[in-house]
Amino acid sequence: MPKKIVTFGEIMMRLSTPGNKRFVQTDSLDITYGGGEANVAAALCNYGMQGVFFSKLPDNALGQAAINHLRRFGVDTQFIARGGKRLGLYFLEPGVSMRSSQVIYDRADASISEAESGDFDFDAIFANAVWFHTSGITPALSDKAAALTLAALKAAKAKGITTSLDLNYRKKLWSAEKAREVLTELCQYVDVCIGPDATLGFHAGDTDVNLNELKPEDYKTVFKQMKDKYGFQYIASGVRESHSASDNSISALIYDGNEMYQTARYDVRIVDRVGAGDSFASGLIFGLLNGMSAIDAAEFGVAASALKHTIPGDMNHATLPEVEDLVKGNRSGKIQR
Amino acid sequence: MPKKIVTFGEIMMRLSTPGNKRFVQTDSLDITYGGGEANVAAALCNYGMQGVFFSKLPDNALGQAAINHLRRFGVDTQFIARGGKRLGLYFLEPGVSMRSSQVIYDRADASISEAESGDFDFDAIFANAVWFHTSGITPALSDKAAALTLAALKAAKAKGITTSLDLNYRKKLWSAEKAREVLTELCQYVDVCIGPDATLGFHAGDTDVNLNELKPEDYKTVFKQMKDKYGFQYIASGVRESHSASDNSISALIYDGNEMYQTARYDVRIVDRVGAGDSFASGLIFGLLNGMSAIDAAEFGVAASALKHTIPGDMNHATLPEVEDLVKGNRSGKIQR
Amino acid sequence: MPKKIVTFGEIMMRLSTPGNKRFVQTDSLDITYGGGEANVAAALCNYGMQGVFFSKLPDNALGQAAINHLRRFGVDTQFIARGGKRLGLYFLEPGVSMRSSQVIYDRADASISEAESGDFDFDAIFANAVWFHTSGITPALSDKAAALTLAALKAAKAKGITTSLDLNYRKKLWSAEKAREVLTELCQYVDVCIGPDATLGFHAGDTDVNLNELKPEDYKTVFKQMKDKYGFQYIASGVRESHSASDNSISALIYDGNEMYQTARYDVRIVDRVGAGDSFASGLIFGLLNGMSAIDAAEFGVAASALKHTIPGDMNHATLPEVEDLVKGNRSGKIQR
Amino acid sequence: MPKKIVTFGEIMMRLSTPGNKRFVQTDSLDITYGGGEANVAAALCNYGMQGVFFSKLPDNALGQAAINHLRRFGVDTQFIARGGKRLGLYFLEPGVSMRSSQVIYDRADASISEAESGDFDFDAIFANAVWFHTSGITPALSDKAAALTLAALKAAKAKGITTSLDLNYRKKLWSAEKAREVLTELCQYVDVCIGPDATLGFHAGDTDVNLNELKPEDYKTVFKQMKDKYGFQYIASGVRESHSASDNSISALIYDGNEMYQTARYDVRIVDRVGAGDSFASGLIFGLLNGMSAIDAAEFGVAASALKHTIPGDMNHATLPEVEDLVKGNRSGKIQR
Amino acid sequence: MPKKIVTFGEIMMRLSTPGNKRFVQTDSLDITYGGGEANVAAALCNYGMQGVFFSKLPDNALGQAAINHLRRFGVDTQFIARGGKRLGLYFLEPGVSMRSSQVIYDRADASISEAESGDFDFDAIFANAVWFHTSGITPALSDKAAALTLAALKAAKAKGITTSLDLNYRKKLWSAEKAREVLTELCQYVDVCIGPDATLGFHAGDTDVNLNELKPEDYKTVFKQMKDKYGFQYIASGVRESHSASDNSISALIYDGNEMYQTARYDVRIVDRVGAGDSFASGLIFGLLNGMSAIDAAEFGVAASALKHTIPGDMNHATLPEVEDLVKGNRSGKIQR
Amino acid sequence: MPKKIVTFGEIMMRLSTPGNKRFVQTDSLDITYGGGEANVAAALCNYGMQGVFFSKLPDNALGQAAINHLRRFGVDTQFIARGGKRLGLYFLEPGVSMRSSQVIYDRADASISEAESGDFDFDAIFANAVWFHTSGITPALSDKAAALTLAALKAAKAKGITTSLDLNYRKKLWSAEKAREVLTELCQYVDVCIGPDATLGFHAGDTDVNLNELKPEDYKTVFKQMKDKYGFQYIASGVRESHSASDNSISALIYDGNEMYQTARYDVRIVDRVGAGDSFASGLIFGLLNGMSAIDAAEFGVAASALKHTIPGDMNHATLPEVEDLVKGNRSGKIQR
Repeated sequence: MPKKIVTFGEIMMRLSTPGNKRFVQTDSLDITYGGGEANVAAALCNYGMQGVFFSKLPDNALGQAAINHLRRFGVDTQFIARGGKRLGLYFLEPGVSMRSSQVIYDRADASISEAESGDFDFDAIFANAVWFHTSGITPALSDKAAALTLAALKAAKAKGITTSLDLNYRKKLWSAEKAREVLTELCQYVDVCIGPDATLGFHAGDTDVNLNELKPEDYKTVFKQMKDKYGFQYIASGVRESHSASDNSISALIYDGNEMYQTARYDVRIVDRVGAGDSFASGLIFGLLNGMSAIDAAEFGVAASALKHTIPGDMNHATLPEVEDLVKGNRSGKIQR
Repeated sequence: MPKKIVTFGEIMMRLSTPGNKRFVQTDSLDITYGGGEANVAAALCNYGMQGVFFSKLPDNALGQAAINHLRRFGVDTQFIARGGKRLGLYFLEPGVSMRSSQVIYDRADASISEAESGDFDFDAIFANAVWFHTSGITPALSDKAAALTLAALKAAKAKGITTSLDLNYRKKLWSAEKAREVLTELCQYVDVCIGPDATLGFHAGDTDVNLNELKPEDYKTVFKQMKDKYGFQYIASGVRESHSASDNSISALIYDGNEMYQTARYDVRIVDRVGAGDSFASGLIFGLLNGMSAIDAAEFGVAASALKHTIPGDMNHATLPEVEDLVKGNRSGKIQR
Repeated sequence: MPKKIVTFGEIMMRLSTPGNKRFVQTDSLDITYGGGEANVAAALCNYGMQGVFFSKLPDNALGQAAINHLRRFGVDTQFIARGGKRLGLYFLEPGVSMRSSQVIYDRADASISEAESGDFDFDAIFANAVWFHTSGITPALSDKAAALTLAALKAAKAKGITTSLDLNYRKKLWSAEKAREVLTELCQYVDVCIGPDATLGFHAGDTDVNLNELKPEDYKTVFKQMKDKYGFQYIASGVRESHSASDNSISALIYDGNEMYQTARYDVRIVDRVGAGDSFASGLIFGLLNGMSAIDAAEFGVAASALKHTIPGDMNHATLPEVEDLVKGNRSGKIQR
Repeated sequence: MPKKIVTFGEIMMRLSTPGNKRFVQTDSLDITYGGGEANVAAALCNYGMQGVFFSKLPDNALGQAAINHLRRFGVDTQFIARGGKRLGLYFLEPGVSMRSSQVIYDRADASISEAESGDFDFDAIFANAVWFHTSGITPALSDKAAALTLAALKAAKAKGITTSLDLNYRKKLWSAEKAREVLTELCQYVDVCIGPDATLGFHAGDTDVNLNELKPEDYKTVFKQMKDKYGFQYIASGVRESHSASDNSISALIYDGNEMYQTARYDVRIVDRVGAGDSFASGLIFGLLNGMSAIDAAEFGVAASALKHTIPGDMNHATLPEVEDLVKGNRSGKIQR
Repeated sequence: MPKKIVTFGEIMMRLSTPGNKRFVQTDSLDITYGGGEANVAAALCNYGMQGVFFSKLPDNALGQAAINHLRRFGVDTQFIARGGKRLGLYFLEPGVSMRSSQVIYDRADASISEAESGDFDFDAIFANAVWFHTSGITPALSDKAAALTLAALKAAKAKGITTSLDLNYRKKLWSAEKAREVLTELCQYVDVCIGPDATLGFHAGDTDVNLNELKPEDYKTVFKQMKDKYGFQYIASGVRESHSASDNSISALIYDGNEMYQTARYDVRIVDRVGAGDSFASGLIFGLLNGMSAIDAAEFGVAASALKHTIPGDMNHATLPEVEDLVKGNRSGKIQR
Repeated sequence: MPKKIVTFGEIMMRLSTPGNKRFVQTDSLDITYGGGEANVAAALCNYGMQGVFFSKLPDNALGQAAINHLRRFGVDTQFIARGGKRLGLYFLEPGVSMRSSQVIYDRADASISEAESGDFDFDAIFANAVWFHTSGITPALSDKAAALTLAALKAAKAKGITTSLDLNYRKKLWSAEKAREVLTELCQYVDVCIGPDATLGFHAGDTDVNLNELKPEDYKTVFKQMKDKYGFQYIASGVRESHSASDNSISALIYDGNEMYQTARYDVRIVDRVGAGDSFASGLIFGLLNGMSAIDAAEFGVAASALKHTIPGDMNHATLPEVEDLVKGNRSGKIQR
C-alpha cells in the first residue's frame, strides 16, 4: 500500500513556444499542464507514492485535459471539483543564453480562485494520508483561495498529518504586505517550510532580502528565526546560480533546527527549468517520508531537481532509480544500453 | 489611393487542435488570430482596399502578436489602443464528418470589453473613410463595448460614411432580449445589414425563428419588415446547408428593397469554416463599394466565402483574381501552372 | 459509485505514418497505444463507468508509457502485471481512397503471450465487478494466453459476472481449426457474443462464410444456431460497407434470442477506423449495463463507432452526451459554440 | 537480371506548403524531388525493373540530395553529370475543393538547361538497355536541352532501343509554334507516344484542341493521324475529369494502330496528384515491356496512376502487387492485416 | 511621429534545415525572409522608429509573402516595386559545434538585380526621412543594382539625410577589385561606415587584411585612414570570436574620428547567428539617431546583436526594453514572471 | 572505379524521441535506420568508396525502408537477403546534461539472427573487394549469426581481402565468457582490430578492465599482447571522456605493432552520439585504404567521429572535404558562404 500524500493548489494549461521562437514568431504552441502542488503530486507518484491532488477545474474539455494529464502519472484526481469559469493558463517563451524566459500569466478568474470548502470533502481527502503539501501561490490567487488553503491546512493538522508549505512569493499576484499577513497565519499549521523568502519579514543583519545573495551563514540566521517563530521541523531552500537562461548551477540548503547542511552542486544545461523547485520539494518530501536524514532528503531533492531541468514540461518524469543513481554521483550521462 | 474601410471589434488568439485531434488528445495547438470585424478588414486589404481595424489589446507580447498578424495583410493598425487586462482567446477543435467542431470561448475581461471612447480618436480614424463595418458580437461583450459600438456608428454616420452591421447573434454572450434592445438602437445607424436573425424580433407567419429553415419567400417577408423599420439599403444573408462537419453547401440572399436575389450554390469540402461569414460580408462590401449590383456583390461575397472554407485560419487569403475566377464559374480546381 | 467493468487482453504500441505517407517515405511515426479490450475499458470510462484493464507488460519505459496512456482515460491499471520480454507493437499505414490501410503486426513474444494465472489475483480483480469483456484475439496469441483467457472467463462466471466476447478472428494469428477449437470452449462461459464469424462453424444454407456478404435473414439463421448451441443472451455484429479507405458506411445487427434488429446506418468520412469495432462493443456493453433495450444498446454502440472513425488513435474519445446526441439524429456537424 | 530502362530529363526540388496552407501563410515547406522522366525511372524500379536516369545537377548538397532521393528507389544515378549553375525548383501550393493547386516554377538556368552531349557517354548509358523514355518538357527548357534530347533519342534508336515520349506541352515554357517545330523532329525517333496534345497540329473536325473535351471517336481520329504521320507503334493518353481539386475521375485511352481501347475509370480522392501522368506512363511502359496487350498495359498504367493520387510526392510508391490487385478490381480500401 | 529611416536592398526567402539536419537528410525546410537592409528596417520598427524598405520583388505569391513578412514588424513596404523574374533564395544548413553552417545562395536573376531608378520615386521615398541605410551586398548583385545603389545614396544626400553603409564584402558575389572600385565611389556619399574590410584597400603595417585578426591598435590605424579618405563621421565594426558554430563571443569597435572605443563582450550560445551584423547596424543607427554617444550607440548595437543570436530567423525580435536591460548588464537570463 | 568495401551485420530501425522528450512523454518517434556495419558502409560511400552491405531483412515494407535508407548513401544493397521474422528495432531516448541517453533494444528474432551461409553468395559479394569489415555485435545475436560471421571472415581471408573487426562488446547480448570464446576464434581472421575491450581477456597489470580508465601506457601493454596473440596489423581505439550527455571529449589511439599514437582531442557539443564509433572505424578504414599512415588514418577517423556527433541519425553525413578540413584544424565553425 503506497503512502498517500495530498496536495492542493492550481493546475494550469501551459502554452509554450516551440523551437526557441518568440511569442510574436510562432504559429503553434506546445501545451502541457502544471502547477506547483500538482507537480509535487505527480513526482511523488513517480517514486511509488500515492499522490492525491485536489483543486477545482472548469467542466469543459480543457479542464478534463488537465485531469487526464495528471492521471498519466497515476495521480488520484477523484477529489477535483468541477465548475467555475475557466481554466487558468500561462504562456511561456523559453529563454536562451542571455535572453530570459518570459511568462505571461492568464489565470485570473480560474475556477480554483472561487472554490470554497464546500466543494471538498476533507474527511475523504485526508483519510489515511501521511502528508499534506501546498504553497504560497494558491492563497495569493484570491481571498477565497487563501481561506480554502487555511481550511485545508487546519483539516490536515487536525488529523495529525505532516504539512509542508512552499512559500513561493510571486510579486505579480499580491503585495509583500498582504503575503506576509496571510502566510504568517498559514505557517502556524506547517511542519516543513520550503523556499523561505523575504515576505516573512526575517533579516540577517543588513543583508539584502534577496536570499539568493545570502551567504550560507546568513541563511542559517534567517532559518533559525523562522524556526523560533513558527516551530518548523525543517526549513529548506534551493539555491540557484543563473549563469544564463541556458546554464545554471543548483544546490540546496536544509536546516533541521540545529544544523545547516548544504547539498552537492549541479551544473545543468537547461531544457526546461519550470517546475524545478517543485521537483526539489517533492524529492525532499519523499526523502523525509522514507526515513532519510535531512541532508539525504535534500540531496535527493536537489538531484531530482537537476534532472527536471533536462525534461520538457512542468512535471518531473525522472524515476526513483535515476534520482538515486545521480545522488550517488553518476553525472557522466553515458548511454544506458 | 485605395479606398479606406474602417472596422471595429475584437481580435482574439485562436488555439486549434492539429491533425483532427480532440482537446484531450493534443499536446500542441495551432495559433492564429481572428475576429469578425478584423477578418473583414484583412480580406478587404487582399482585394486592394485599405482596411483599418481599431480595437483595444493588452500591452504585452500576445497583444503585439495579434497586431503583427493583422499587419501581414496590410491592415492599418495604428489606431489600436493598448492596455487592459488580457487578450481574448478561443479554443477550436475542428470537427470531421458527423463530429461537430467545438469552440470554447475564453474572452471574458478581454481588453476590448473595457475600452471607452476616450481610447480612440474618431476624427483621425474616420478621416477619408468610405465605409464602416462592425458586428453584433462586440456590443454583446459588455455594456461598455456596446456603448463604444454605438458611439463609433454615430461618429461614422455623422461623417456621411456608409455603415454595415453583421448581426451575428451569439446566445452564449447575451440574452435574446438584451440583444434585441441593443441591436435595435444600433440599427438606426446602419445602411447595410447582414445575417439577419430572430433577435430583432421579426417573423414570417408561423415560421420558426431559425432562419436557416426559412424558405426564400419567408426570407423576403422578414427582410421587407427589417427594411421598413430601419431603412436599410441592403439586407443580405448567407445560407448554409450543413451536410456534415466536412461537407457543406453555401449560397446567399440579398434584398435591395425591391427584389430578392439568390446567388449560385457551392458544394464545399471544408478545411476551415471559421470566418466564412466574414468572408461573405467583406466580399459584399467590396462589391457594393466598387459599383457592382446587389446580386453581383452577393455573388462575389459567396464565392469569396466558398474559397475561405479551403483556407486554414479565420482570415481569408483568397485574392481578387481568384474570387473573380470562381464567380465566373471555374470550379474545376485544376492545377494552375 | 460507478459500475466496474473488467477487460483483459493485450495493449500494444501503435506506430503509424503521418500525413498519408507510406512506410518507405516517412521519417517519423505517430505513436499511440491500443488493443481491443483496452479500448473497451477506455471507452467505458468516458461514459462514466469504472473500466479496469489487466494484462502483462514489460518492466521498461515502453510498458510504462502504455499504462500511462490508459490512465489518461481513468482506466484502473493496478492489476497489470509487469515483466516478460517486450511490448507488442503494430505498424499502421493508413490508407486513402482505393489505397488500403496496411498493418504490420510485431507482437510475437509480447509479455502477455507468456503470462499465467499466477500473475493475477482474480479475486481482487473481479471484486464488485459487474461485467467482464475479452476477445478472440488474446487466446490466439499463444497457448498460455488461451489458457489464461479461459481461466479469467471461468473466474468471472464463478462470481456471477456478465461476460462478453468479441470473436475477432485474425487469420494471421491462428488457423480456423485452432480458433474453432479454442473459441468453442471459451463460448461456454460467455453471455454476450459480438462479431460472429465463420470460425465457429455455423452456416446459413450455401452462403459464403464471409459474413459481410450475408443478407439480414441469413444473419438471423446463423445467430439462432449460435444461440441454440451456446445459450448466448445477445449476439451482435457490426456491418461495414467499405466504399474506399476514405469512406465507409456502418450499421449493426443485434439478436436477442427472438428478434433481430438492425440499427441506423451512418456514412462516415474516415480519419482513423482502427478500434471502431471496439467502440461498438463498448457502446453495446454500456447500453446493456444501463438498462437499454437490445436495439437501443446497439444504436448507442453504432453511433459511438461512427464517432470513433473521426478520432485519431485506437481509443474512442467520444463523450456520453456526444454519442447520445448522435443517436438522436444530429448528424449535421454544425459548430458547437 | 532486371530489364534496364533509361530515362532522361530534369529533376527538381519541389517545395510544397503543408496542412492546406497557402504560400503567404506557411513558415515551412515540405520538400521532395521530382520530374517527369525521373518519376518514370523510380516507378519502374518499384516494379522490379532497373531504372536509369541521366541528367545534370549542380555540384552542391542540393544536387546531391536529389540524387539521394532517386537512389532510395534503386534508380541508377551513375550517369548524372554534376556541374552548372543551380538546381531547378518548383513551389507547389496544393489545392482543395474549388481552390486550385498553384505551381510556381523556378527552373530557369538549372544545370540541365546548359548540359551538352559531351557531358554523357551514350554508349555506356544505353548499353543493354531495352527502353528509352523522355518527355516534351526537357526540350522546352533551352535550345541546348532540345538538342540533347534529340541526340539521346537518336543514340537510343541507333542501338535498336524502344523509345517513348510523353508530349506534356507546358505553355509557360515555350510557344506552341516552337513546340511543334521541335517535337515534330523528335517524333521521328519515337515508338510510343503518350499524352497527345494540340501542339502537334492535329485536329478532329472542328473539335477544340483541348483534348480533355474530345469524344472517344475524335481521339481516334487524331491518334490515327499521328500514327500515319510518325509511325508510332502505340499512342496513349490519360483522361482526367476534374470535379474539384479534391476529387477527380481518371481513365485512359490507347490506340494500337487498329483499335482504340478505353480503360476502367477510377474516382480518386486526391492526396497529391502531381506525377499521376508519369505514373500512367511508367505503368504503360512496364506493361508493354512485360508482354501485356495494349489495353492491359493501359489498365496497369491507369491503376498505377490512381494509386499515385493517394501518395504524397511526385514519385509513385505503389508496389507491383498493389497495382495488380487494383487492376483486378479491388477498390474497397479494406485494411490489410 | 516616429523617425523615418529608409533602407534599400534585397530581401530573400531563406530555407533552412530543421532539427540540426543536413541538406541531404531533411524532408522539410523552415522558411523565413531576410536581407541585410530589410533586417535593419525591421529592427528599427521594433525600437519604435518608422522603418521603410524599398526593393523590387516578383509579382507572385512568393514576393507577396516576403512583403507580408516585413509588414509584421510594421515596416512600410509601399515603395517596393513588383515585377522581374524571381525571388532571391538562400538555403541555410545551421551548424553545430565544429560543423560549420552552410549557405547556398540562389539569388541570381532576382528581381532586384534588374531594378532601375525608374522603378522608384525617390522624392516620395525620402520625404521626411532622417536616415538612409544600405550595404555593400546590393551593388555586388549586378551593375544595374550598383547604379541604383549609387543613385539612391545621391538622392538621399541631396536631401540632407544621414547615410550609412555596411560594407559586407561577399567574395562569392564579386571580385575584390570590382568591389573596391564600386565601393570607393559609394563611400563618397556615406556618413557612417560599418564593418570595414580589406576591400577598400587599407592596411595596418604588415597585418593581414583579415580584420578579425587585427589588434585594436591596428583597427584604429585603418579606421583613421578611412576617415581621412572619405570623411566618415563614424566607423564601426563588430568583432566576432568564433569558438565553434555553437558558441561565439562578440563585441564591437567604434571610432568617432578621435577616439576608438571598444564595447562590452558577450559570450553567446547560438540559436541563429544570421543577421547578427544587421542587428548591430540597426542598434548603432538607433543609438546615433536618438542622441547616444558613439560608445553608447555601439553598446546598444552589440547588445541587440547578442540577443539576435538567441532568436530564430534573420530579423531581430528583441524589444527596446530588452536591449536596454542587457546594456545595463542583466545577463543572468532569469525567468521574467 | 571506386574501391569496394564489404560490410556485414544487422541494420535496425531506430525510433527516437523528439525534442528532448522521454519515452513516457512522446506521441511521436523519429525514425532512422542504423547498425554498426551498415553505418561503416554508408560513411565509406560518402568518401567516394563503393560500400557494400549484406544482411537479411524481412520481406515487408519495413525491411524495404531500411534498404532504401542505405541506398540514399549509394550503398550497394543487392546482396541483402529477404525473409525471416522481423526487422530488428531499437528505441532511443537521447539524454541531456546529466540525464543519460536510454536505449531499449528490441532485436530478438530479427531476420539476421536466423540467416545462414546459404542465404549469401560469397563469391559474388567479395568479387573485387579490397576490405571486409564486421563487428562483435553480430555474432552476439545468435549462434547462427556467429557461425555466419565466421564463415564470412574466412571467405574474405581466402580471397586475400583485408579484414577488420570492431569488438564492440554488448553485455546485454551475451556473457563475457561466451564473447571471449567466439571472438577469440574470429580474431584469427582479422587484420585490423578496433575498440579492444576486456572480453578478450588481456590485462595491464592491476588496471581495471574498463579501458576508458586505462592510461596510455597501459593501453600499449594491452595492445602489444593482442598483437602478439593474433598478429593484428593495427589495433585502434576511440577514447571518450563523457562530461555529460551533452558534452564529450573524444580522441583515439592506434598501435602499429611498434608505436602507439594518440590523436588530437575534440570537445564536442552533442546532437547525436550514436554511431560515432562506427564513424571512427570507417574513417580509419578509409585512411588505411588510401595510403595514410596509421596516425593519419586515426586522425581522419577521429575527426569524422567528431563531426558525427553534430549530425542526427546513426549514419555519418560528413563529406570528405569536411573531414579533411577538420583534420587540418579548422574548428571555428564559421559560416561557409
